[in-house]
Amino acid sequence: MKKNWFFETDNVVSDLRVGYRIKRKIFSKKTEFQQIDICQTDKFGKILFLDGLTQASERDEFIYHEMMTQVALMIHGSAKKILIIGGGDGGILREVLKHKIEEAYLVEIDNEVIEASQKYLSTISKNSFNDKRVKVYIENGFNFVKQYANYFDVILVDSSDPIGPAKELFSSQFYKNVFKALKKDGIAVFQSGLTILQKKELKSVYEKNKKIFPIVKVYYASVPTYLVGDLGLILASKKIDPTRISKKTLDKNYKKLNLGTKYYNPEIHFAAFVLPNYLKDALR
Amino acid sequence: MKKNWFFETDNVVSDLRVGYRIKRKIFSKKTEFQQIDICQTDKFGKILFLDGLTQASERDEFIYHEMMTQVALMIHGSAKKILIIGGGDGGILREVLKHKIEEAYLVEIDNEVIEASQKYLSTISKNSFNDKRVKVYIENGFNFVKQYANYFDVILVDSSDPIGPAKELFSSQFYKNVFKALKKDGIAVFQSGLTILQKKELKSVYEKNKKIFPIVKVYYASVPTYLVGDLGLILASKKIDPTRISKKTLDKNYKKLNLGTKYYNPEIHFAAFVLPNYLKDALR
Repeated sequence: MKKNWFFETDNVVSDLRVGYRIKRKIFSKKTEFQQIDICQTDKFGKILFLDGLTQASERDEFIYHEMMTQVALMIHGSAKKILIIGGGDGGILREVLKHKIEEAYLVEIDNEVIEASQKYLSTISKNSFNDKRVKVYIENGFNFVKQYANYFDVILVDSSDPIGPAKELFSSQFYKNVFKALKKDGIAVFQSGLTILQKKELKSVYEKNKKIFPIVKVYYASVPTYLVGDLGLILASKKIDPTRISKKTLDKNYKKLNLGTKYYNPEIHFAAFVLPNYLKDALR
Repeated sequence: MKKNWFFETDNVVSDLRVGYRIKRKIFSKKTEFQQIDICQTDKFGKILFLDGLTQASERDEFIYHEMMTQVALMIHGSAKKILIIGGGDGGILREVLKHKIEEAYLVEIDNEVIEASQKYLSTISKNSFNDKRVKVYIENGFNFVKQYANYFDVILVDSSDPIGPAKELFSSQFYKNVFKALKKDGIAVFQSGLTILQKKELKSVYEKNKKIFPIVKVYYASVPTYLVGDLGLILASKKIDPTRISKKTLDKNYKKLNLGTKYYNPEIHFAAFVLPNYLKDALR
């Protein structure tokens, strides 16, 4: 491929290849777990790639990070203990810290993602790793969550795709452990693949969770650099239904918290759970 | 680029290049107006490219064609005379013909798009061009619409991008002519570019129409093969507000019509008009 282009690997959507014109490669390293690349582009700002796949761009990371975080935290209303699995770029952490929480645990398998992100993508983490409420664990997320029972209010699983180091995070056993680690009104959110091209993966996460949690809902975020189409997210909840929460309460809390979100708002909250017919059919 | 790949031209999003692995090229011709290519892929079925840019894939064309058509036709409720500008692949025509209309005019500048689509993309047009209610005009859409006053209930503008043969379809004069060609409760829909990367274009269509129509709303459709992100659509209406129509009426009509839509449903109708903060800000 051309010299000034970074082409994604094509192991997710094998008929499609996406390339970014890059101004320069800022960081490139093969770690124990994966290949990390950070490239500077003109239109998308800096982009973080793991194993050749886009994880976050400065231009649109807010969409994914807000939607992964704010939906669960807003419906919970008083979450104090948060667990983030993955999320080494710090974007979800930044969103979590906008709330009055006590502890945010971030469990990342690959320390080098955190180091490179802090160094080169500070626009995303915004100094969040230095917040006193944050505890970072360099560990396998699957093993970490096993040790907890009735402890977290919200667990956010910012995994990469079901291939590579994140594979275990798509297993029924993992979802059971997440259930156990959550308090009685706890909520978990799982990144679950592209709605149109990874329907099977989405359905699999949905069905596995349906056997464990009383409330499981699919919602989506349209993140431009996560080609192709919408990213499906799954919210699994012990008690609170994200689609039945009072709009008034949500509006009030949203105003009070002054989150400064660029994508999320209470109307988007409800709209994100509205599924097109093809997805409803796929989940049936 | 590699032999078995078709790479989009990069004149829309110059930092990004998208390539499709193709099984074979089915049709390729430089016409008086543009370069037409139809390629067979595995994951996306056949794809139609105009001047090297994806127009429709068999896999996801339903999203764009339903959202371009059903939102306006459903809120109108009794549209009889429809004008489609562009849309030579017949996808919008197919959606229009699901309603009890009297006449559907399709005005396409390039006859070869219609011919190639009828021959190779009949999964999209579904024999619609043979319907007795359909009148096809091979003409410039800008000039065509000028000749009409108070005639159409709904006008759907399925243009390509504001460069190339569709340029005039993004001018204030065109929107004025559309207004004049519509009856007193008429509705128009304009394809208006990608929400995050073509914000300026979207805003321009929005503002031009705001000076002409009393009701102008932005909504969006997430079409995977229209990388990157959501496609912005603009609905301009003389009387009916698409966000204030009764949900009950919409539900009732939707059931009665039995449209067989794979994306559109009455909940999606309202959700599509809910804008994230960054878009609200951009349109302010």
